[in-house]
Amino acid sequence: MQHSIDQLSSSKCFGATVERYSHVSPTLGNTLAKFHVIVPPQIKHRKVPVLYFLAGLTCNDETFVLYSGAQRYAAFYGILVVCPDTSPRDTGIEGEDREYNFGSSAGFYVNATTHPWNKYYHMFDYVTKELPQVIYSNFNVDSNRQSIFGHSMGGHGALICALKNPTQYLSVSAFAPVSNPVNCSFGRKCLRGYLGNDKESWKQYDATELIRENGPQFPDILIDQGTLDPFLKDQLLVENFQKACQSVGQNLTLRMQQDYDHEYNFISTFIHDHFAYHNLALSQKPNASI
Amino acid sequence: MQHSIDQLSSSKCFGATVERYSHVSPTLGNTLAKFHVIVPPQIKHRKVPVLYFLAGLTCNDETFVLYSGAQRYAAFYGILVVCPDTSPRDTGIEGEDREYNFGSSAGFYVNATTHPWNKYYHMFDYVTKELPQVIYSNFNVDSNRQSIFGHSMGGHGALICALKNPTQYLSVSAFAPVSNPVNCSFGRKCLRGYLGNDKESWKQYDATELIRENGPQFPDILIDQGTLDPFLKDQLLVENFQKACQSVGQNLTLRMQQDYDHEYNFISTFIHDHFAYHNLALSQKPNASI
Repeated sequence: MQHSIDQLSSSKCFGATVERYSHVSPTLGNTLAKFHVIVPPQIKHRKVPVLYFLAGLTCNDETFVLYSGAQRYAAFYGILVVCPDTSPRDTGIEGEDREYNFGSSAGFYVNATTHPWNKYYHMFDYVTKELPQVIYSNFNVDSNRQSIFGHSMGGHGALICALKNPTQYLSVSAFAPVSNPVNCSFGRKCLRGYLGNDKESWKQYDATELIRENGPQFPDILIDQGTLDPFLKDQLLVENFQKACQSVGQNLTLRMQQDYDHEYNFISTFIHDHFAYHNLALSQKPNASI
Repeated sequence: MQHSIDQLSSSKCFGATVERYSHVSPTLGNTLAKFHVIVPPQIKHRKVPVLYFLAGLTCNDETFVLYSGAQRYAAFYGILVVCPDTSPRDTGIEGEDREYNFGSSAGFYVNATTHPWNKYYHMFDYVTKELPQVIYSNFNVDSNRQSIFGHSMGGHGALICALKNPTQYLSVSAFAPVSNPVNCSFGRKCLRGYLGNDKESWKQYDATELIRENGPQFPDILIDQGTLDPFLKDQLLVENFQKACQSVGQNLTLRMQQDYDHEYNFISTFIHDHFAYHNLALSQKPNASI
């Protein structure tokens, strides 16, 4: 299958290049999807691993490369970083841009089942299926070595993508993730809007529920969380995820970062730790003992 | 003299804090001026040196802290970084926001003499006189140790602030500076607009003219310039500055950075080098031999 993409921009940074692309996405109802990649210099000489970053509410595919400082570490470790958008765009659905926490820029990384969103809003399949194929078809990457991380709504996205596909990703981490969306107002708004009123159907996209249901899936999960994050108590509920991990024996490295907030001053401070964490997993040779 | 300031925000990053303030500025016609500071953790224990960053066209006081990654290095070296705005704001001058390259966000770091700009647009005095006093009055800094750098229009600003006040700054550097504004269309537009038609008056704010006129002023000047910068040939004219430095014996470290462009992917790649450069100068004890 062809996965043709159009390059929109390219800019050198730390010896890597920051590149933006668009492509028509069948998974997203044939809308035009954009993504950013940070292409490390090592890709000229060998297949490199892939690390997906899922951004948060109100962000798009550019946010992470503008604010995180990830370029330095992508170049250093030789990892291709892929940043998808946070929702389909310009679907024509009336009111898709009306609310900051539902519709465009708030796709919540689920496959919508309710009309009219179910025609376009399949961000879960886009991130876990279509986009990886687009990347494999167009970049010199090792499809056996991919990991995923994200921030806030995108931290939720990273956790559910990994927990629902534990063999696809070698590691998962998150910054201030929405950790138990069935129990917070933002999560319930998106889950009801995209999936309808059957609350049982929401649980398939809830990291805390998935851990409880399926048990441990990774040797470890890394989460950084700022103690001054204004969303911590009511929306993120990371302690619920922590309890679920403890109850099933899933190792979780939860670091409460004193006096840090929710935004990119927080993320950029700890981004190197996350690269080092994923690099360890991505550097393992699959089936190395054979 | 009191220099009272109001804190607008604070956010922790790399152990430093990124803080935004506003104050009524007499130099800027009693308009409300905003600035950002990156406050390093060392300030709790000792007076720290100060490094001013002047931003470019269309930017404001927040741009540098959002995109440069400077927080990491401010915290590491223990330097207070100060980021003023690029012009007065909300003066009430008709059309001040109309053009991207004149008026608001394009103050060009001069003292305007033409009506109506001369009532407010005194960015040169603001950056070199009022703002340092505001900083000394409100932060635990060493007023004998300050340096300056900037980008594009702000690279021009840093060069003229330093070359016109060589005893005030211990070092100066720039990213892709407007180096000879009397000879480029953007520079001439601002110089004519703020200073009038007398071209002789423009030369006092032209780094290339100042070097030619006054001779060498610093042990060295550091400039980074991307070779894919679209403004290099017509607007920045760094080779004119280089020739002037050569003609008077001013040491200049001009690094042409292969395939880098004009924006923050370029700046963030080399920002550490500039911090290391300024840190060397700022670490000298003034009159150490006495």
